[in-house]
Amino acid sequence: MNQPSLEPLRQKLDETNRQLLELLSERAQIAQEIGNIKEKQGIPKFDPVREKEMLTELVASNKGPFTDDTIRHLFKQIFQASLNLQVTDHKKQLLVSRKKQKEDTVVTLGNDVKVGGGSPVLIAGPCSVESYDQTRTVAAALKQAGITVLRGGAFKPRTSPYDFQGLGIEGLKILKEVGDEFGLKTISEIVDPAHVELACEYIDVIQIGARNMQNFELLKAAGEVRKPILLKRGLAATIDEFLHAAEYILARGNTQVMLIERGIRTYEKATRNTLDISAVPILKQESHLPVLVDVTHSTGRKDILAPCAKAALAAGADGVMVEVHPDPATALSDAAQQLNIEEFGNFYAQVRESGLLG
Amino acid sequence: MNQPSLEPLRQKLDETNRQLLELLSERAQIAQEIGNIKEKQGIPKFDPVREKEMLTELVASNKGPFTDDTIRHLFKQIFQASLNLQVTDHKKQLLVSRKKQKEDTVVTLGNDVKVGGGSPVLIAGPCSVESYDQTRTVAAALKQAGITVLRGGAFKPRTSPYDFQGLGIEGLKILKEVGDEFGLKTISEIVDPAHVELACEYIDVIQIGARNMQNFELLKAAGEVRKPILLKRGLAATIDEFLHAAEYILARGNTQVMLIERGIRTYEKATRNTLDISAVPILKQESHLPVLVDVTHSTGRKDILAPCAKAALAAGADGVMVEVHPDPATALSDAAQQLNIEEFGNFYAQVRESGLLG
Amino acid sequence: MNQPSLEPLRQKLDETNRQLLELLSERAQIAQEIGNIKEKQGIPKFDPVREKEMLTELVASNKGPFTDDTIRHLFKQIFQASLNLQVTDHKKQLLVSRKKQKEDTVVTLGNDVKVGGGSPVLIAGPCSVESYDQTRTVAAALKQAGITVLRGGAFKPRTSPYDFQGLGIEGLKILKEVGDEFGLKTISEIVDPAHVELACEYIDVIQIGARNMQNFELLKAAGEVRKPILLKRGLAATIDEFLHAAEYILARGNTQVMLIERGIRTYEKATRNTLDISAVPILKQESHLPVLVDVTHSTGRKDILAPCAKAALAAGADGVMVEVHPDPATALSDAAQQLNIEEFGNFYAQVRESGLLG
Amino acid sequence: MNQPSLEPLRQKLDETNRQLLELLSERAQIAQEIGNIKEKQGIPKFDPVREKEMLTELVASNKGPFTDDTIRHLFKQIFQASLNLQVTDHKKQLLVSRKKQKEDTVVTLGNDVKVGGGSPVLIAGPCSVESYDQTRTVAAALKQAGITVLRGGAFKPRTSPYDFQGLGIEGLKILKEVGDEFGLKTISEIVDPAHVELACEYIDVIQIGARNMQNFELLKAAGEVRKPILLKRGLAATIDEFLHAAEYILARGNTQVMLIERGIRTYEKATRNTLDISAVPILKQESHLPVLVDVTHSTGRKDILAPCAKAALAAGADGVMVEVHPDPATALSDAAQQLNIEEFGNFYAQVRESGLLG
Repeated sequence: MNQPSLEPLRQKLDETNRQLLELLSERAQIAQEIGNIKEKQGIPKFDPVREKEMLTELVASNKGPFTDDTIRHLFKQIFQASLNLQVTDHKKQLLVSRKKQKEDTVVTLGNDVKVGGGSPVLIAGPCSVESYDQTRTVAAALKQAGITVLRGGAFKPRTSPYDFQGLGIEGLKILKEVGDEFGLKTISEIVDPAHVELACEYIDVIQIGARNMQNFELLKAAGEVRKPILLKRGLAATIDEFLHAAEYILARGNTQVMLIERGIRTYEKATRNTLDISAVPILKQESHLPVLVDVTHSTGRKDILAPCAKAALAAGADGVMVEVHPDPATALSDAAQQLNIEEFGNFYAQVRESGLLG
Repeated sequence: MNQPSLEPLRQKLDETNRQLLELLSERAQIAQEIGNIKEKQGIPKFDPVREKEMLTELVASNKGPFTDDTIRHLFKQIFQASLNLQVTDHKKQLLVSRKKQKEDTVVTLGNDVKVGGGSPVLIAGPCSVESYDQTRTVAAALKQAGITVLRGGAFKPRTSPYDFQGLGIEGLKILKEVGDEFGLKTISEIVDPAHVELACEYIDVIQIGARNMQNFELLKAAGEVRKPILLKRGLAATIDEFLHAAEYILARGNTQVMLIERGIRTYEKATRNTLDISAVPILKQESHLPVLVDVTHSTGRKDILAPCAKAALAAGADGVMVEVHPDPATALSDAAQQLNIEEFGNFYAQVRESGLLG
Repeated sequence: MNQPSLEPLRQKLDETNRQLLELLSERAQIAQEIGNIKEKQGIPKFDPVREKEMLTELVASNKGPFTDDTIRHLFKQIFQASLNLQVTDHKKQLLVSRKKQKEDTVVTLGNDVKVGGGSPVLIAGPCSVESYDQTRTVAAALKQAGITVLRGGAFKPRTSPYDFQGLGIEGLKILKEVGDEFGLKTISEIVDPAHVELACEYIDVIQIGARNMQNFELLKAAGEVRKPILLKRGLAATIDEFLHAAEYILARGNTQVMLIERGIRTYEKATRNTLDISAVPILKQESHLPVLVDVTHSTGRKDILAPCAKAALAAGADGVMVEVHPDPATALSDAAQQLNIEEFGNFYAQVRESGLLG
Repeated sequence: MNQPSLEPLRQKLDETNRQLLELLSERAQIAQEIGNIKEKQGIPKFDPVREKEMLTELVASNKGPFTDDTIRHLFKQIFQASLNLQVTDHKKQLLVSRKKQKEDTVVTLGNDVKVGGGSPVLIAGPCSVESYDQTRTVAAALKQAGITVLRGGAFKPRTSPYDFQGLGIEGLKILKEVGDEFGLKTISEIVDPAHVELACEYIDVIQIGARNMQNFELLKAAGEVRKPILLKRGLAATIDEFLHAAEYILARGNTQVMLIERGIRTYEKATRNTLDISAVPILKQESHLPVLVDVTHSTGRKDILAPCAKAALAAGADGVMVEVHPDPATALSDAAQQLNIEEFGNFYAQVRESGLLG
């Protein structure tokens, strides 16, 4: 019994839909023409004052049954859609975006180690470069295991000004010497925009740390050089903010950027941070840049590094980073969470065994 | 030079806007008629299959310049707006909402203590009712200070099954006896839907704890009785979820509900939870129910209870709850965070002095 | 020059260490004897009043150089260590703990599907049981794919009291009928302690939902039956709280408990919740119970279910749960995040291909 | 019947306690002597290798009943306590700490506006300095209302490299001109260490933003100048990290530092961030520096600014910061959350009325 009475109304509704569609298309065309003119004249596309006027006028003419708020809402959606037609949507066109570049970016460390789009890479080394001997001991062990990339901190951003702040340039020199001896690529964090250029002489990859993910001056400096950058996600950065931070680097011309998830701050205390594993497939989907996972800082627990590294690789990560120290108990930073060389051997064996390293 | 070329286009745009407005209003009227018929026939207003068909048809007819995604998005907004006209929008019409009831709800404890819309109330007492003597000692001190409401846990939801779970019904009886002796109103948490009715015989307010904020069976049971309910915000509940939890109670007919913020889970470890002070004005704005703050559980720190209580009152809270124990060091639960009687005296003096208690 | 002056002092220190060790051992023995006597007499082992007296006396005798606070701290540690010797340490002896049971618990669904300690299981089905046809359609597809366990909600805990609350018992009956027809095991959430026993007649696994993880009355009811329980982690529950919630069930005699991670609440909005992948290896390490991952609720995004499921398995999960609906667009709950049957096919193919399903 | 058998054991325990106390004191004296010698010889006080040796030896000699883990734990506590005696405990001695300086630090803006230890200050102004006219309009309104400090962003740290980044030095010049005209003190954020010195010529207070709270190079640069610094809490910084960030500035000699809470990242979406009100009394207690609250960024909601400002003041804040723009709808940044001048008038009236501004 209800079909008879509903049907005619539904047909009227369908007809109205069709008319709305036509009108919307017409409006979009006008908006495009306006956009083109503005483009030529260098006038900003978004004109909030004019939008406000149009809304005021529409609401004044509104006779219902939609409330004024609803009318305001619907037209704001229409205005936004029209604006999107006019402007180069930065979101769509972000340099880091898959929409901008379909194929995976491959970052080349030195002249032979490739990251992205192929076999995953394992990066290891001490939290801090403490001495030539300490660094050499780790490097020798990594080399023997078949690892190709050595990490080590020279400039350490520390919560307290009184904590060990790293060996600075001296640390970079040690990395270079040891890297050269064993044929390992080297990664170290740089914290001062003024050091970026200098650092390029000593190391193969410049790391930008979690605390500096939105230090935009540092990002800009990293964009000016032509060394690979390893950009860490901030402690409480959203994925969107992470991608925009990378965009700062690409926007300056440096396309050799790797993203690295390192755990986010949550209420859970069983781990130092919470490894946001879903960030891996999301970043791989949204961006063409290589995506890595720092399992050490993500968890802060040596006892779960292997399963977390396997999870990272299974989720599609292009690499994993882990901290290794010859004698963690005496380490000058992050003593509790670094693997010793034997533990690293076990860790590496477990990860390799899974077949996920390719 | 740009005015000449932009102006005619802008006029065309304004004209299109007007036509769109007209068409949208027309469509809204048809949707309303359909809604009325459906109402009479008892057919659900929202018909996802029909919506999908309409969208499919519209996209098929779309000739640009808007993308199909944009068309889909815009029409979904229009459909939603039309649906909102048809149905009783529960959000707008939530029983807990200020939109439904302008004036403040005043909850009456026993037959004389009023909460909401007037002078703020201070609720105090031990975490757990441990014995008649312990409860009586606190009650005597509170009475002397001029406090009118006594809290005390009888059924304690504890993380571990092996921790002290409270005295149960025995605890409620102690509360009643002590409350009667000193003329204090009493509050205690109930955790089992089956106990709600029984509890009404012993206490003046039934508390629903943070862990049970979305125990909907318990909320429904609380909605069936005619005792005031003190509903705690869940450990990680949004304000929206909190209000909907209260709605479960009001929807069953019990309008005597008080909301109490008790801190939310965040990464910060300096406090047990993070007191979400902005929840107070937001809840007061969105709802007509009284809003209180449990400063003890929000902070877990005795040393900042007074400033936090003052902040709560300054933000517009209708009351503050605080834990007091004759000898916190020997308390069977939450030993560290309960004030002893002398400390309570200092706390109360500071809060009173601020003039914020009205 | 420094060795001569430091060495004798170091020897003295070593000697003091030895004496301290001896004295501590002696003290531990006395404490054990006291514990044994208390045990026999049924006196509580922890005596806060006596501890306070001892501390007061020690501080009174303290002549430095340690501050009174340091003395209090050190002796509290010593008291705690002594108490641990006396009492059955619940943490060490938790029924859910690996320390209590070395080998993996294997949970048997119906009489043949095993979860834990072997090949991982894949659980699939609609968010809500909406009708016999809808459920049957999914079941037929799952059966054909080789899936053995069907999930479907009959009692839906919903934020709003006005949302679809599920078909209730009717839903359980549909699950039973469909499960029987296709030889599938069935899982459904129960929210009321009073329904637990009844539910055992219809379904093979009783699920306790995230919002009810600390609904201790429900946990106790689940502990009283002899059906497998699937316990979901709370929205903001710590791992420790999660294990204690399971302990409530085991403490009542039901050992057939499976733990399921389902994402936790964080600031990140790219996903509905944040899948805490490190919880998997931690739970596997701390407990002998099977650990699963609900990838649908963890992420709320269909586009990353396969990599997240692979990550879960690589991290050591005993199973994965995912939502499948014949026509997600028309689903009565969680429309956006359910896979349709074709999407499920793709998802399953990707997970199988990884070799991680064993 | 139990007293007879427990009492002698308790006396033995008391005796052992006394002996332990003596031995601990003796050990502490030896440790102090060692510390003094190390001090003179410039040897680090903490010697992890030696600690490890001592623990190994002690565990080797352990005959129970304490487990080796317990022995290790207890001696680590003892070692730590001894080390605390030897070294300058940085926590106790942090320059920002109340333990180091009892009385409140009073920061002087320009030569007359005092912040800290007295009447609270209200800081207002636009998110960004967009033009001379816009800034002048706000300044005139603030002046008239009796406000003494004007804020305005010249260097804007923006998530996207394509968003308006501020007028830079030009913006600082506008602030100076407008500040001079109206006799207002000025605050603006500096993001590059290289700009800190230059900025001192134009503005009265250098703000370090939330994203740069752990940009240690910037903190060091801020420590080198003698202008007041307004340091914002990081988006997910703990209170401890916040204080240590301030310590970086004081350690370089600049003692004129103000701390400002601006909300932290949590799961709650009703507000842009969660105003951590308890941070105010904690910071006031732990540090002698002035503590302010930025109510605009804490909440991102104009409708609750007044109650939140009142809460901040009631909690003990030395000031409140709020964003004001002549026409928020057209603002180049943070349009939605800035008050217009009339709204600011209402806000200010409400705050003043509360009597909390002193």
